[in-house]
Amino acid sequence: MTTHEAQQHDHDRNRSTGATGYPTPAWHKAYRTGSRPDLRVPYREVHLGNGRTVPLYDTSGPYGDPAYETDVRRGLPALRDGWIRQRGDVEEYQGRAPKPEDDGLRPTAPRGGLRNLDAVFPGRPRRPLRARDGAAVTQLGYAKRGVVTPEMEFVALREGMDPEFVRDRVARGRAVIPVNVNHPEVEPAVIGTDFLVKINANIGNSAVTSSIEEEVEKMTWATRWGADTVMDLSTGRNIHTTREWILRNSPVPIGTVPLYQALEKVDGRAEELDWEVYRDTVIEQCEQGVDYITVHAGVLLRHVPLTARRKTGIVSRGGSIMAAWCLAHHRENFLYTHFEELCDILRAYDVTYSLGDGLRPGSIADANDDAQFAELRTLGELGRIARERDVQVMIEGPGHVPMNKIRENMDLQKEICDEAPFYTLGPLTTDVAPGYDHITSGIGAAMIAWWGTAMLCYVTPKEHLGLPDRDDVKTGVITYKIAAHAADLAKGHPGAQAWDDALSDARFEFRWEDQFNLALDPETARAFHDETLPAEPAKTAHFCSMCGPKFCSMKISRTINETFAPDTPATEAEIAAGMLAKSREFAANGNRVYLPLTD
Amino acid sequence: MTTHEAQQHDHDRNRSTGATGYPTPAWHKAYRTGSRPDLRVPYREVHLGNGRTVPLYDTSGPYGDPAYETDVRRGLPALRDGWIRQRGDVEEYQGRAPKPEDDGLRPTAPRGGLRNLDAVFPGRPRRPLRARDGAAVTQLGYAKRGVVTPEMEFVALREGMDPEFVRDRVARGRAVIPVNVNHPEVEPAVIGTDFLVKINANIGNSAVTSSIEEEVEKMTWATRWGADTVMDLSTGRNIHTTREWILRNSPVPIGTVPLYQALEKVDGRAEELDWEVYRDTVIEQCEQGVDYITVHAGVLLRHVPLTARRKTGIVSRGGSIMAAWCLAHHRENFLYTHFEELCDILRAYDVTYSLGDGLRPGSIADANDDAQFAELRTLGELGRIARERDVQVMIEGPGHVPMNKIRENMDLQKEICDEAPFYTLGPLTTDVAPGYDHITSGIGAAMIAWWGTAMLCYVTPKEHLGLPDRDDVKTGVITYKIAAHAADLAKGHPGAQAWDDALSDARFEFRWEDQFNLALDPETARAFHDETLPAEPAKTAHFCSMCGPKFCSMKISRTINETFAPDTPATEAEIAAGMLAKSREFAANGNRVYLPLTD
Repeated sequence: MTTHEAQQHDHDRNRSTGATGYPTPAWHKAYRTGSRPDLRVPYREVHLGNGRTVPLYDTSGPYGDPAYETDVRRGLPALRDGWIRQRGDVEEYQGRAPKPEDDGLRPTAPRGGLRNLDAVFPGRPRRPLRARDGAAVTQLGYAKRGVVTPEMEFVALREGMDPEFVRDRVARGRAVIPVNVNHPEVEPAVIGTDFLVKINANIGNSAVTSSIEEEVEKMTWATRWGADTVMDLSTGRNIHTTREWILRNSPVPIGTVPLYQALEKVDGRAEELDWEVYRDTVIEQCEQGVDYITVHAGVLLRHVPLTARRKTGIVSRGGSIMAAWCLAHHRENFLYTHFEELCDILRAYDVTYSLGDGLRPGSIADANDDAQFAELRTLGELGRIARERDVQVMIEGPGHVPMNKIRENMDLQKEICDEAPFYTLGPLTTDVAPGYDHITSGIGAAMIAWWGTAMLCYVTPKEHLGLPDRDDVKTGVITYKIAAHAADLAKGHPGAQAWDDALSDARFEFRWEDQFNLALDPETARAFHDETLPAEPAKTAHFCSMCGPKFCSMKISRTINETFAPDTPATEAEIAAGMLAKSREFAANGNRVYLPLTD
Repeated sequence: MTTHEAQQHDHDRNRSTGATGYPTPAWHKAYRTGSRPDLRVPYREVHLGNGRTVPLYDTSGPYGDPAYETDVRRGLPALRDGWIRQRGDVEEYQGRAPKPEDDGLRPTAPRGGLRNLDAVFPGRPRRPLRARDGAAVTQLGYAKRGVVTPEMEFVALREGMDPEFVRDRVARGRAVIPVNVNHPEVEPAVIGTDFLVKINANIGNSAVTSSIEEEVEKMTWATRWGADTVMDLSTGRNIHTTREWILRNSPVPIGTVPLYQALEKVDGRAEELDWEVYRDTVIEQCEQGVDYITVHAGVLLRHVPLTARRKTGIVSRGGSIMAAWCLAHHRENFLYTHFEELCDILRAYDVTYSLGDGLRPGSIADANDDAQFAELRTLGELGRIARERDVQVMIEGPGHVPMNKIRENMDLQKEICDEAPFYTLGPLTTDVAPGYDHITSGIGAAMIAWWGTAMLCYVTPKEHLGLPDRDDVKTGVITYKIAAHAADLAKGHPGAQAWDDALSDARFEFRWEDQFNLALDPETARAFHDETLPAEPAKTAHFCSMCGPKFCSMKISRTINETFAPDTPATEAEIAAGMLAKSREFAANGNRVYLPLTD
C-alpha cells in the first residue's frame, strides 16, 4: 500500500466510524513510548503528499485517535491511574458529601430540584485520592527529592527534552506540571519559560446563558485546535456537575477560580464570604480533580485604594470580589491570611496555584501602575511560601498594556517571582477595537511570550462584549497558537522552525494539499483557496490566484534554483565568475521562466 | 436643539439621503480650516451620549460627509487644483496618446474591442499637468527651498503638528507626502516615523477574477475603515481604465507597480521587457495621477544567485520579474541602469518612489539573509540619488521575519537608508497559519511600527490562498489599524491615547452605545454584544454578559471610586489613616457592592 493509499484508507475508516476529531484525514494520532509500556506520549503526525510526515505537538487527547470511541458519559481512560497509585503515597477516602449548594441550589432545596447529585457523572465510580500521612504528592515535591516521575518523562518526550532537565526546572519552580491526583485522565503538560509556550482557553456558562453539554463540547473543541489547558469559569447553576463532566472528559489540565463558586454559595454577596465556605469549595474541587486554581490572595486591603484613581478600577472579577470583601470587613483578605493552610490543602492533591492578578489594569491608561505592581510583589512573596510547602506555582499577569510597557511586566515578574511561570491574559495593546480583542491581545501575547511568559490565556473576539460561542473559541485558540508559536520561533525553541519550514517547502513546491494540512487550521485554509479557485486541478496547478496562470514568481524562483543550486557558490564574491555560462544555459532553454500548466 | 436631538436629526438626514459612508450615525464628518478658506482638513467626530465629542483621524474623504452626493461617474472634487496651479510651476499639455495595450489589448486590436478608450472616465475632461521648465514640483523640492506648501499645512493640521516641523521632516527625507500634481482629488497624508503610523490596502483585479466596479468599491470600502493609501495591483485586462476610475474617486494616495502593467504589454514575457516599454508605462501612470510607485531597482544581477539556496526563493512578483530579466539578458536590471532618468520623470509630476524589496524573504527560514540585506544596501544608494534629484522616497521592507529578527530590519534600514520612511509588508512572524496571515503579520507589523516603520502594507486572511473579497479587505484594514494604533501608543504619539481613554471611560461607565461608536468597527462590536444580550435595555444596563446581572466587577470598582476618590490620598503611606472611617461608611450603606438594575 502506498502512502497515498494508506492515507485514503485511513480517511475512509475515519469517515465510517466518525470517531476522529481531526479536521483533516492527513492528521494521524501517533505515540512515542517511554521507559514503560503505559507511558505513551501522543502527537500528531501530518502525512504529506510526498510520503513524508511531520510530527506536531497535539492536545486533542484520545479524541484524535480513530481507535478511540468517544463516549462523554463514560469519560476518558484513566491514563495516570497506575502512576499515581504505584507511588504508594496516596489513599482513597470517602470524600466530602455533596451539597445542594455545590450546584447553586438553596441548602433547603427539595431533592427533586437537584441535577441528580447522587450520580453527578454516570462514568466509572470513583472515590477521591489524597496524600497519605502528609506526604508531598506534588510534582514539585518529587522533583525536589530528585525523583523523575512518569509525568516528567511524559512531558520531556512530548517536548523533545531530557527528563532530568524537566525535573530540574520543576524543582527550581521555573516550571509546573499541573496534574491533580484526582484527574488521572490528563495528559501531562509542562508550563515554563524553557518549554513550548502554552495557551489556555476559558470556557464556562454564566448566569445568562449556556448548558453543561455545550461546555463539555467547547472543551473538546478548544483542545482540538490546540488549547493546552482549559479554565472552567462557570457561574450560576450546575457548577459542580458541569465541572465533573468536563474533568472526566478532559485530556488537558483544568483550571478554575474557586472564588466564583464560593460566591454563588453565598448568593452573590461578597461580604458574606469567609474562609470556611472558600475552604470547603476548594476541597470540593480538589476532590473532583481540578489541576490548577486561580487564587486572588494578592489583593490586600492596603492595595485597594491604589485603584481609586484608575480609569477602569478593578476589572478582575476575583479581584473585585476580594476588594469588596476587604472593604466590607476592613480586614485583610482571608485568602492571604489563610494562605499557608490553603497550601497544605493543595499539596495533598497536587493542585497548582495560579496566583491571580486581581488588580491587573483594565485599560491602557492603568497599565503598570502602583496597584498592579504592589500586588505583583505580594504574589512574589506568596509564591515563595507555596514552593517551600511543595506546592507548584504560576503567577498571573495582565491585561491591558501598551507595547512599550510590556517588557517591564516580564522583567519585574522574573525578578520578583523567582522566575516562576508567568501566565498572562494577552496583554491587549490598545483599547479601541472591541470585537477584535483576540488581535489587540494576540500582539501583546506574542511579545510577552517571546520575552519569557510560559502560558497565554486566550482572548476571544467577544471579549468585553459577550460570551464566546464555538466559532469564537476556535478563533481565540488559533490566534493564541499563532502567538505562542511565533514566540517559540523567536525564542529559538529547538524544533519549532521545522513546522514553518515544512509548510514553506509545500508552498514553494505548490503542494497545496500539504500546505492546507500543515496549517493550524486546514479547514479555513482550504475553504479560502477554494473560494477563488475551486476546481480540483487548481490544487496541483503551478500557480495561485494572486498572479494567475501566465506568470508566477514561485515558478521563476524555481528556475533560479535550478539554474544555480545546489553546486553554485552563493556568496557575492564567488558569483561573478559563473554567471555568464549560466546565462547562456538559460537562453539555450528558450528563456522559459514560466512553463505550461502541464509541467 | 440638544446634542442628542442634533444627533438624531443628522441620523435621520443621513438615512434619508443614504449618502453617508459611515457605519454609525454617531460618526460625523467635521473640518478644521487652515490659513486659507480652501484648506479644510477633514476629521471624524464621534458624538457620545454624554454630549462630548471625540475627534479622530479619518481617511474616508467626502464619502463620510452627508452633504456630499456620491457619484463615481463624476469623481471627487479637485481639492488641490488651486494649490497646484497657484504655484505657477506646472503646465497643462496634451499628454501621451492612449494605446490599446494600456488596457491589455493587442496593438492591432479592432477599436470595438476596447473599453471606450476615448472616454476612459466620464467625469470632467482633463489634460495632464507636469513641471514647467524642469521645475522641482515635488513636496521635497519645496521643503528644501523652505516653502511650507498647503499640502504640508494640511497634514500638519491633520496630525496636530506644526507645519514647519512637517516641512523639516520632508526636507530631510524622513517623511513623504505622496501627492501627484495629476491627483488633485487626494487629501494629503504624511508618511514618516515622526507621524501617525499609516496603513496601505492592496486591491486589484487579476487574470483570474474581478471587475472595475468591484475595485472602485474596494477602494472606497478600504478608506471607510481607515486605509491611508491604496495600491492598485491590477493585472490582466482594463488596467488603465480601472486605475483611472480609482484615481478619480480616491481621497487617498494611490500607489501602483508599473512593472505589472509593463509586463502585460509584452504579453507576460519578462525577457521582452525593456526600458522603453517601462518608461512609457510610467509616464502613462504619472499623467493619470498615481501618487507613488513601487520600483524594483534594487534587484541586481549579482543579487539573484544569493537567492538560489533559499527555502522559498523570490516571492515578490516584481522581484522575480526583474530577476528573470537579468538572467535572460545577463545584463544589469534596467530599472537600476536608468534610475536617474526615472527620477527626472517622477520629479516632473511629484510621484514618490517606493523602492521595492524584490528579494524580501518569503518564509521564516529566509529572513534577514544576504540577498535581502544586499538589496537593502542598494535601496539606500538609490534613495540618496532620488532625494538629490528632489524625488520623495520610501523604502519597502519584508515580508516573513520571526519576532527576534524584526528589530535588525528596522535598525539596518534606518542606518542604510538615512531614515527614509520604511514601508513594510507585515512582517509575518510565522508561516504556519495560512488563512490567518492578517494575524501572523499584524503581530510583526505592530512591533516594527513601534520601532519606527512609517507605513504598514496590510495582509488579509486570504494571503497565500486567494484574492481578498470585501470582507477580507475590511478584516485586513481593521487588523492593521490596530497594529498602527498600538504602535502610535507605544511611540507615545501625542494624543494617541485619548482615543483609548475615551473608550475605556465609556466601558467603565457602561455607556455601551459610546463603546460601540468609539470602536474601530462599530458594526461588529454592536453585533457581538447583541448576540448575547439583544434586548435594547441591556445596552444601558449596568452589567454585561460575562458576569451577569447579579455581580459585576465594574460596579464594585465604581463603589471603590466613590468610596475613595477624588480627595483620598492614593499612595500606600497615606492610605492607612483614612481607611477605618471609610470602611464604616461602606457598612452604613448596607454593604451594597452591587445594586439593582434599576440603579
